Amino acid sequence: MKLKLAVLPGDGIGPEIVEQAMKSVKAIAAKFNHELEYEYALTGATAIDQVGEPYPDQTHELCMQSDAVLFGAIGDPKFDNNPKATVRPEQGLLLMRKKLGLYANIRPVETFESLLHKSPLRRELVEGADFVAIRELTGGIYFGEKGRKDDGNTAFDTCTYTRAEVERILKLGYEFALKRNKKLTVVDKANVLESSRLWREVAQGMAPNYPDVTTEYMFVDNAAMQIIQWPKNFDVMVTENMFGDILTDEASVITGSLGLLPSASIGIHTSVFEPIHGSYPQAAGKDIANPIATILSAAMMFEYAFNLMEEGKLIRDAVAASMAAGVVTVDIAEGKSYKTSEVGDWIADWIANA
Amino acid sequence: MKLKLAVLPGDGIGPEIVEQAMKSVKAIAAKFNHELEYEYALTGATAIDQVGEPYPDQTHELCMQSDAVLFGAIGDPKFDNNPKATVRPEQGLLLMRKKLGLYANIRPVETFESLLHKSPLRRELVEGADFVAIRELTGGIYFGEKGRKDDGNTAFDTCTYTRAEVERILKLGYEFALKRNKKLTVVDKANVLESSRLWREVAQGMAPNYPDVTTEYMFVDNAAMQIIQWPKNFDVMVTENMFGDILTDEASVITGSLGLLPSASIGIHTSVFEPIHGSYPQAAGKDIANPIATILSAAMMFEYAFNLMEEGKLIRDAVAASMAAGVVTVDIAEGKSYKTSEVGDWIADWIANA
Ligand SMILES: CC(C)[C@H](C(=O)O)[C@@H](O)C(=O)O
Ligand SMILES: CC(C)[C@H](C(=O)O)[C@@H](O)C(=O)O
Repeated sequence: MKLKLAVLPGDGIGPEIVEQAMKSVKAIAAKFNHELEYEYALTGATAIDQVGEPYPDQTHELCMQSDAVLFGAIGDPKFDNNPKATVRPEQGLLLMRKKLGLYANIRPVETFESLLHKSPLRRELVEGADFVAIRELTGGIYFGEKGRKDDGNTAFDTCTYTRAEVERILKLGYEFALKRNKKLTVVDKANVLESSRLWREVAQGMAPNYPDVTTEYMFVDNAAMQIIQWPKNFDVMVTENMFGDILTDEASVITGSLGLLPSASIGIHTSVFEPIHGSYPQAAGKDIANPIATILSAAMMFEYAFNLMEEGKLIRDAVAASMAAGVVTVDIAEGKSYKTSEVGDWIADWIANA
Repeated sequence: MKLKLAVLPGDGIGPEIVEQAMKSVKAIAAKFNHELEYEYALTGATAIDQVGEPYPDQTHELCMQSDAVLFGAIGDPKFDNNPKATVRPEQGLLLMRKKLGLYANIRPVETFESLLHKSPLRRELVEGADFVAIRELTGGIYFGEKGRKDDGNTAFDTCTYTRAEVERILKLGYEFALKRNKKLTVVDKANVLESSRLWREVAQGMAPNYPDVTTEYMFVDNAAMQIIQWPKNFDVMVTENMFGDILTDEASVITGSLGLLPSASIGIHTSVFEPIHGSYPQAAGKDIANPIATILSAAMMFEYAFNLMEEGKLIRDAVAASMAAGVVTVDIAEGKSYKTSEVGDWIADWIANA
């Protein structure tokens, strides 16, 4: 099979972790006889520094022509406390989401037995937690009209959703639920927001078409509590963009394995695979960052973008083997720790020799 | 001193827990020779059922004429899954907030040593956590223009903030920080939202006026993680309405003592004191609900509305005594448990005999 990838390392630790994931991707391609074609492109602060914008047209063109995008991370602290900066790395991310139509961000929330002691939650609450959080990614307050009025003294943002947008993401939610434990939790704030009332209305209309799935409605404030108190009660959770930003980050830390969690953003034109952790600028260039989340993002890429389940599974097995062998970076090592590149090499070798 | 109160029991367990708090209020008034004047009024689903609206004018008039409002809880499940209901209990709450100008919701996040084992977090992370979460309560997406377009197929909500609104709440945040550990965390989403950029701009303008306070800026998604991972790092947190709804609920469960946490909503016309837990309809009328959060809300009322610190402290001491003596409701009892009314009586008696 021909696999055409765009590789966007981005900022901070992005380049070094993407490099490790590419080692596994190449090992898989060699082993399964896939024809791998890939090209690198600029994004984030790195792109601003080099060409003046965070998601250059050239990068976009490459993504449009690719079957999948492997993404590192973006963000640089030099932009953070400057509310007047006109160009920001994050704009590149938002532009990419919009232009590629990445309407669904999918984050499996899984625990790793060997890392449970790193969870901030009591073991018995979180052990075995396993759900998928689906966040709408191209609508809502992120992309609505925003601006200032009244000499800059009034600021506004608009949250907008159309029925079609809500249907599209809920459909995905139901499809995931059907393949899993058949429970969909729709998170909204229908007691306050009109957009949430549309969400709930659409969900209530669709629910009868999925008689095998139990549809549950939950207010966002309650969801923020349930994630901590009863994470095992969730199977598939679906929510709008802003709520999803908050809840998926909250959900990710309960596992104790933030550095290990991958994500997929399903798009109209192509799909993007990236670790959920950030650009971690303090560690950039030090060969200490954990590459596993990016390597697992590559596994999701084989599964979601190419429907190559065996390939995805082999990467997962290799990651599990590295963890079982203690070949891991300092953030999760119990004793001896390995460098980013050593972990990347070990996993790719394991795949080659499997 | 003359104390003029409005008492709004509301729905579910509201009436029975407010009754217990009133026992303590009366005991305090008797002991300190305050002239107590109070009147009950309708709110929530109860008000809808009886007079057709959740915050009747008569209730509002009473609140306007009172120095403080003691509030139970509102909400009834019969309204929850009906997106087309035109009158909802929550509207009463929102109307009350707006009409009384309750611009700041204040929630102390405290742990109780004897309840730490109920926290979903590991003891060492949460033990000693002690911060105050301040939520803006009359602005933002709760009160901006909202509606439908396009034959009902597009829904929108608007988040609006003015400079004056942001200044007012940040000023309160700084005042709390000055009286505490001198750290203010301003939570926003300034990398995406224009309203958040206004918040950050205003904060950056005010920070130099409070040289003794360290101002910290945090994105809301990060805050959702930090609350679980490092709750002890917070001193005073301030944020906008919708983020505050989510984060304050998240923060409340980490203590393991949701049934014990009070809140104050500071207003232009008067202030409202209420437990943070909800109306808990399943327990209504059973004399099993925990009245402590409401009793502690009464303590906050003496302190915040009347500046009667000794009175507030005596209520707190009485609550601590009841817990030390094991006179507590079933939700937190280790062995024998007491009824709502028994706990209320015990605490009021303790005050009377102190
Ligand atoms: C960087 C930021 C714009 C982005 C978001 O809010 O979507 C990030 O937090 C994320 O979740 O991917
Ligand atoms: C009931 C609801 C409208 C309300 C809110 O969202 O403000 C509640 O969740 C709260 O936090 O007091």
